[in-house]
Amino acid sequence: MVPEYREGLRGYTGGMPGQDVSFELDAPLEDLVKRILDIPSPSGHEGPLADAIEKALQSAQHLEVMRLGNTVAARTSLGRERRVIWAGHIDTVPVGDNLPSQIRDGALWGRGSVDMKGGLAIGLSLAVALDSPQHDMTWIFYDNEEVEASKNGLGLFGAAHPDWAVGDFAIVGEPSNGAIEGGCNGTLRVEIETPGKQAHSARSWMGHNAIHSAARVLSRLNDYTPATITVDGLDYREGLNAVGITGGIAGNVIPDSCTVTVNYRFAPDKTLPQAEAHVREVFEGFFVRVVDQAGGCRPGIDGELAQGFISAVDADVRPKFGWTDVARFGEWGIPAVNFGPGDPSLAHSDDEAVSLAEVRAVHQGLRAWLSSYSD
Amino acid sequence: MVPEYREGLRGYTGGMPGQDVSFELDAPLEDLVKRILDIPSPSGHEGPLADAIEKALQSAQHLEVMRLGNTVAARTSLGRERRVIWAGHIDTVPVGDNLPSQIRDGALWGRGSVDMKGGLAIGLSLAVALDSPQHDMTWIFYDNEEVEASKNGLGLFGAAHPDWAVGDFAIVGEPSNGAIEGGCNGTLRVEIETPGKQAHSARSWMGHNAIHSAARVLSRLNDYTPATITVDGLDYREGLNAVGITGGIAGNVIPDSCTVTVNYRFAPDKTLPQAEAHVREVFEGFFVRVVDQAGGCRPGIDGELAQGFISAVDADVRPKFGWTDVARFGEWGIPAVNFGPGDPSLAHSDDEAVSLAEVRAVHQGLRAWLSSYSD
Repeated sequence: MVPEYREGLRGYTGGMPGQDVSFELDAPLEDLVKRILDIPSPSGHEGPLADAIEKALQSAQHLEVMRLGNTVAARTSLGRERRVIWAGHIDTVPVGDNLPSQIRDGALWGRGSVDMKGGLAIGLSLAVALDSPQHDMTWIFYDNEEVEASKNGLGLFGAAHPDWAVGDFAIVGEPSNGAIEGGCNGTLRVEIETPGKQAHSARSWMGHNAIHSAARVLSRLNDYTPATITVDGLDYREGLNAVGITGGIAGNVIPDSCTVTVNYRFAPDKTLPQAEAHVREVFEGFFVRVVDQAGGCRPGIDGELAQGFISAVDADVRPKFGWTDVARFGEWGIPAVNFGPGDPSLAHSDDEAVSLAEVRAVHQGLRAWLSSYSD
Repeated sequence: MVPEYREGLRGYTGGMPGQDVSFELDAPLEDLVKRILDIPSPSGHEGPLADAIEKALQSAQHLEVMRLGNTVAARTSLGRERRVIWAGHIDTVPVGDNLPSQIRDGALWGRGSVDMKGGLAIGLSLAVALDSPQHDMTWIFYDNEEVEASKNGLGLFGAAHPDWAVGDFAIVGEPSNGAIEGGCNGTLRVEIETPGKQAHSARSWMGHNAIHSAARVLSRLNDYTPATITVDGLDYREGLNAVGITGGIAGNVIPDSCTVTVNYRFAPDKTLPQAEAHVREVFEGFFVRVVDQAGGCRPGIDGELAQGFISAVDADVRPKFGWTDVARFGEWGIPAVNFGPGDPSLAHSDDEAVSLAEVRAVHQGLRAWLSSYSD
């Protein structure tokens, strides 16, 4: 299929619906990455890529394949003692002018090269190639990661097929510079409202200024020392911060309300209720309303299984502070890490590019670990 | 002319352009108030009422009349030692369902009865009747007081005719419950911006939280004790208050900016530059930007002229805290007071009504003072 541009669509449109695409799975890894990259799959338009992935997985006798929408999963059932889940999203942010992909200076350039088709190629290649991995494997290739959480294919798949959402350890193939980024912090957002009594500002003594009262909320934030908590051997830095403040009615009115929005990023040693209780304790005496929350995820890297993984892939290990899809595994009670090629700071940028050497290194590490069957 | 309602106009429309209206100036005072009230004059539509006022003033031999737009002024030139200005606005907020006016329980009900056609009737009646007042008089009936300051007829008239904007004392006929409300506080509004450094809230230690920094601004407000300052014998309470606060970019971002809007209401002992210097001193170390300002006005009630006024009208005297058109006289260097019938808290309300006894009392007080010619 010749890459082409179409009027009316945003940039490169190779692999649009109706085009038959497939992969040569015995070709070199970099060819597979380039092939996957050249099938555009912005969120909501993952069909052709999902079709090609499904076809590739169906070709492997050792895999049971399950599809939900444009999320495709496959698993082995070899009776191993442990099960590992590998997951990666197949969608990208909208394609700009950076497709078709190009190889320059040992790197593959183009939309999605970092986030996360480099990782995707590794997962797909290993899913098909490893017919006897040392742990039973579940591979999940999911859609709609780059859009609102309610559409997220990993979340929807786990909800629809809870028997597939089981395992002892999970690896999310998101770019991590080839390092292992363990778990993730949880996040809780609350609104703290201070009350007041409205009055004309020419007679301010008739009222009670809610903005002035917010000083005590901000002072508690300034007095707060965020903790660093070690979970499964990794140090998670927490944070408690105002991310918004709003108050005021008019330039001549003493305001009767002021709202401070506070974001608590908490280590994965805490459940959501524990995190909420902590915030309520910090702001005791104030009205606290939870507006948004998402739990964290333990890295689980102190276990035997993960230790084997770490020593096999020979990569740096550090905590993940930002909230990622790793946390969905946290919800399912499965410790998880990010491990994939590419610099996350290049994700979504116009000069997105992934080092092919890093793609090979991550592939090699995972392959080495999963192949070393020793039961 | 029979009061009438017209489709397509908001409520009562007696006295619209093209209708000839005039006053019977020798009729009882309450008839004049009712007559003025039944000529609707919402801001921007003061023409018919201004015409009628001009005609009435022109009928008095002792008055020199000057008109600018829908502002009509008249003055005596009797060679008195002192000149007093009386001013009142002729516009109202939009007419609702409260016209035509009704007399019930000794009160006159309807849009503008309080704000300020009761006062207007007093001014017009005295302007025409007093052909030999004890002080030379300048009477100003002005438009567009209820809308943006740039349209204010008193300000425009004074700017166009500076030789009319002179006097030793001024009385603004705004409702003051029949009491004398002296001078007015000035008002200054500033924005105080605290800086920060943006970062993802998952890595808050990479940034600097501007909202947290605003705690110090609010603390200074909480620590501030507003002064009460005696000016010309009246005690002016000041106030320094946050009237707005805004900060925040998104629920997961450490904000790099937070702005507190502060309103300083200052006694008329201070000029605007002095008020600004005070605020800059309170917030030393912060970036302070002036966004709005208007000077105050001394009451001047400790002078001989005003003392004669106070004893003649036999009314309570108190400071005016809110900013009113009195301050325009402050700009012209003329001490001024508010003195008019009606409860200002009823102004603009649907049940606006003025006590006819209070209208008569204010009329009687002013008449007694201005008639007691003793040169």
